[in-house]
Amino acid sequence: MVPALLVSLWNQEFKAVYGFIWTLAAIMVTASLFLFLGRGSKKKFYAREGLACVGISWIVMSLLGCLPFCISGAIPNFVDAFFEIVSGFTTTGASVVSEVEKLPMGILYWRSFSHWLGGMGVLVFLLAISSAGGGENGFTMHLLRAESPGPNVGKLVPRMRKTAGILYLLYILLTILNVIFLLAGGMSLFEAVCTAYGTAGTGGFGIKNDSIAGYSPYLQNVCTVFMLLFGVNFSCYYLLLIKQFKSVLFDEELRMYFGLVAGSILLIVLNLKGVYGTLEETVRHAAFQVASIVTTTGFATTDFDMWPAFSKAILLFLMIVGACAGSTGGGFKCGRILLVLKSLRRSVHQLVHPRQIQAIFSNGHPVDEKVLQNTNAYLAAYVSFVVLSFLLVSTDGFSSTTNFSAVLACFNNIGPGFDAVGPSCNFASYSIFSKLVLVVDMLAGRLEIFPILILFSRTTWKRK
Amino acid sequence: MVPALLVSLWNQEFKAVYGFIWTLAAIMVTASLFLFLGRGSKKKFYAREGLACVGISWIVMSLLGCLPFCISGAIPNFVDAFFEIVSGFTTTGASVVSEVEKLPMGILYWRSFSHWLGGMGVLVFLLAISSAGGGENGFTMHLLRAESPGPNVGKLVPRMRKTAGILYLLYILLTILNVIFLLAGGMSLFEAVCTAYGTAGTGGFGIKNDSIAGYSPYLQNVCTVFMLLFGVNFSCYYLLLIKQFKSVLFDEELRMYFGLVAGSILLIVLNLKGVYGTLEETVRHAAFQVASIVTTTGFATTDFDMWPAFSKAILLFLMIVGACAGSTGGGFKCGRILLVLKSLRRSVHQLVHPRQIQAIFSNGHPVDEKVLQNTNAYLAAYVSFVVLSFLLVSTDGFSSTTNFSAVLACFNNIGPGFDAVGPSCNFASYSIFSKLVLVVDMLAGRLEIFPILILFSRTTWKRK
Repeated sequence: MVPALLVSLWNQEFKAVYGFIWTLAAIMVTASLFLFLGRGSKKKFYAREGLACVGISWIVMSLLGCLPFCISGAIPNFVDAFFEIVSGFTTTGASVVSEVEKLPMGILYWRSFSHWLGGMGVLVFLLAISSAGGGENGFTMHLLRAESPGPNVGKLVPRMRKTAGILYLLYILLTILNVIFLLAGGMSLFEAVCTAYGTAGTGGFGIKNDSIAGYSPYLQNVCTVFMLLFGVNFSCYYLLLIKQFKSVLFDEELRMYFGLVAGSILLIVLNLKGVYGTLEETVRHAAFQVASIVTTTGFATTDFDMWPAFSKAILLFLMIVGACAGSTGGGFKCGRILLVLKSLRRSVHQLVHPRQIQAIFSNGHPVDEKVLQNTNAYLAAYVSFVVLSFLLVSTDGFSSTTNFSAVLACFNNIGPGFDAVGPSCNFASYSIFSKLVLVVDMLAGRLEIFPILILFSRTTWKRK
Repeated sequence: MVPALLVSLWNQEFKAVYGFIWTLAAIMVTASLFLFLGRGSKKKFYAREGLACVGISWIVMSLLGCLPFCISGAIPNFVDAFFEIVSGFTTTGASVVSEVEKLPMGILYWRSFSHWLGGMGVLVFLLAISSAGGGENGFTMHLLRAESPGPNVGKLVPRMRKTAGILYLLYILLTILNVIFLLAGGMSLFEAVCTAYGTAGTGGFGIKNDSIAGYSPYLQNVCTVFMLLFGVNFSCYYLLLIKQFKSVLFDEELRMYFGLVAGSILLIVLNLKGVYGTLEETVRHAAFQVASIVTTTGFATTDFDMWPAFSKAILLFLMIVGACAGSTGGGFKCGRILLVLKSLRRSVHQLVHPRQIQAIFSNGHPVDEKVLQNTNAYLAAYVSFVVLSFLLVSTDGFSSTTNFSAVLACFNNIGPGFDAVGPSCNFASYSIFSKLVLVVDMLAGRLEIFPILILFSRTTWKRK
């Protein structure tokens, strides 16, 4: 939070400065309290503790992180501020603010920085830079596993902490590269950094009311490319670094991801015939919106809610698909969809040949049945969450399209939906109750459901 | 088809008579052809053959069954007629006809009768009354299993053919009871029989333009009760007959089903405050629409598309849930949802206690892991089908709500959806392409996906 404080000091935004200082004090107090409560604990750290710890950390972190908004008066209502920061940390980008350009710069910085922090994982970050937890143990592994997206978290190197370090290094390098490309297009440093944070975390908070629409075609295309890059599994970049080009080229998830992107852009361009003046403009908007939705970023260069039904259906489809596992993007994840489809194909095959036993392969390696089971459980949890949230949010009386896309946009950490929550609107008009439902959706979506679900399970809180 | 022919003869509808006679001739020719092609075949009948046979039979049956509509000129366009009869056999009740009251009575009879036939299963019917297949063998079991809804088809008695017989006997008795109650409310015999067919098969084709809205409150309530009764697993009735009251009373699926119905009615009544004049009217309409949607019948007494968002969300939720397994209703089925949720709960439990091995129980009995696996595969297939169909149907340019509810209404065999396919509208305005997509949805929904999916699988057509 200190960089945000410095930005506010530099720009002489005293209310925001006040907000950050009080929040930093509150963080100190909370941290001391936790250290005091946990003193001398030598409890072993298993999967349960890892999951619960991640779930609780994200909630506490958001409760504290929203204080600058409240105290500075930028977003005076606590629930609104809480919604906004959860949307930030979970890289959703759904906002309750209609006039972002009126916010103090320190607050804008903090909003965008929360995306960057949440993108790669806050606890992974702590893991990478601190020595908490004392060396290599179950603690680090379970934390990393619970916070990182994807059906199967791979270690890049034998030591978990080093893996976290490599991931963050790649993340920082790509972000800096993004900033440089944006600066080259004429953005100010502040704009470039904030936009890069939103892109890197696949978040979507902008610093302009019209998101990216007002920038030059060059800047829009830079965003398109970098959004897509941040939607790729980061272990692919690591593999590139250690020159394993072949395994990147033949990575099934990566092929599906880029195949989907290319196919969607093509179909939307065909469907948009006549909507924009030139082919260049059509392709640019189509590519930008596809990249923004599939990576669950949520930036916009045009009001895609005005697009024809088929294009909107493709975007809705991409909302569910999401980016690659192991990226900063949300959604169901391409890799998981591949597993679900492969396991479905096996079920059909087994109807025909009931006595054959078949393994499922991913990139040439057999997939553990446990992973398949968890993937199917994830699908069940995903559908249950969406249906239940849709029911609860409907109590506010908006249209079905609004409610359904609001739930999808929050749960998949995208940001804008359609209709009353479309790219030109915001979430401010929802009731407090619905906002809290959507907050749970955002957290559950970012943490891939189980760290949140486990907090509601009785067995979690039972002593052995 | 002979009863429909007789109705047409009685009412001197010569065009319809002509249509039925030509169709009967076509059926004879097709049947002879199949008998000729299959002569002397002693191929053994496994699951693959059972599934493929059911899939193909339903398609052939629909191709022939729609001929009376075309030839009589009632629905001149072949694709429209095909859509209408698939909607009939699959007990969907989605119609392309806007003025049903103008149709000849023989055609109306055939439309409604197709619901009744499709409800309990056409092949199960043949099984129950004929001696085809020569005694008790794999043939009967695989057919029954492929055509009957639900995750786990139980034999009521050791012999499959006898099971089919008992099911149909119960079905006929309940239908007759329904007719008697409708006659007591002042309906004509023709009206009562057609309405009972639509109710028994949980289909939804009516013989009035305004569905059930024009009938007296008594008749509407009779429909509500009988729709709910036909949504119950028929083995419950068998258990009642053999006096196993306790196992019916504690049946988990039945409790969930009636719990959902009661809860939904209550919430909708609260939400509808002020929409209708009296409480009686509110409760009547709420109960009717809930029963109609949860059993996937699709009758309507009021235009529920005009209801507030929360009530519509509940109906959308019930569309997906569907009735009990082993009933004539469609949808995902209550029993299957219970299994999915239980298996999800187990997954959460296993995160906390990774080394415990837990069985899942249904009504006190452990569930075979194979059934659980198939249920999860079914969920994956269900979601894939809905998403893909939604994408394809969106090419027509209607609103998302229209397309999404049209797909759900067809796939779950309900009939009316929301917006442009709401209860006061019909499916006529969709393109031929979309109608064919929805036809596949209806068939896949009624036959629970796999008999249709297997027709598209390469392994099915490979010789060993």
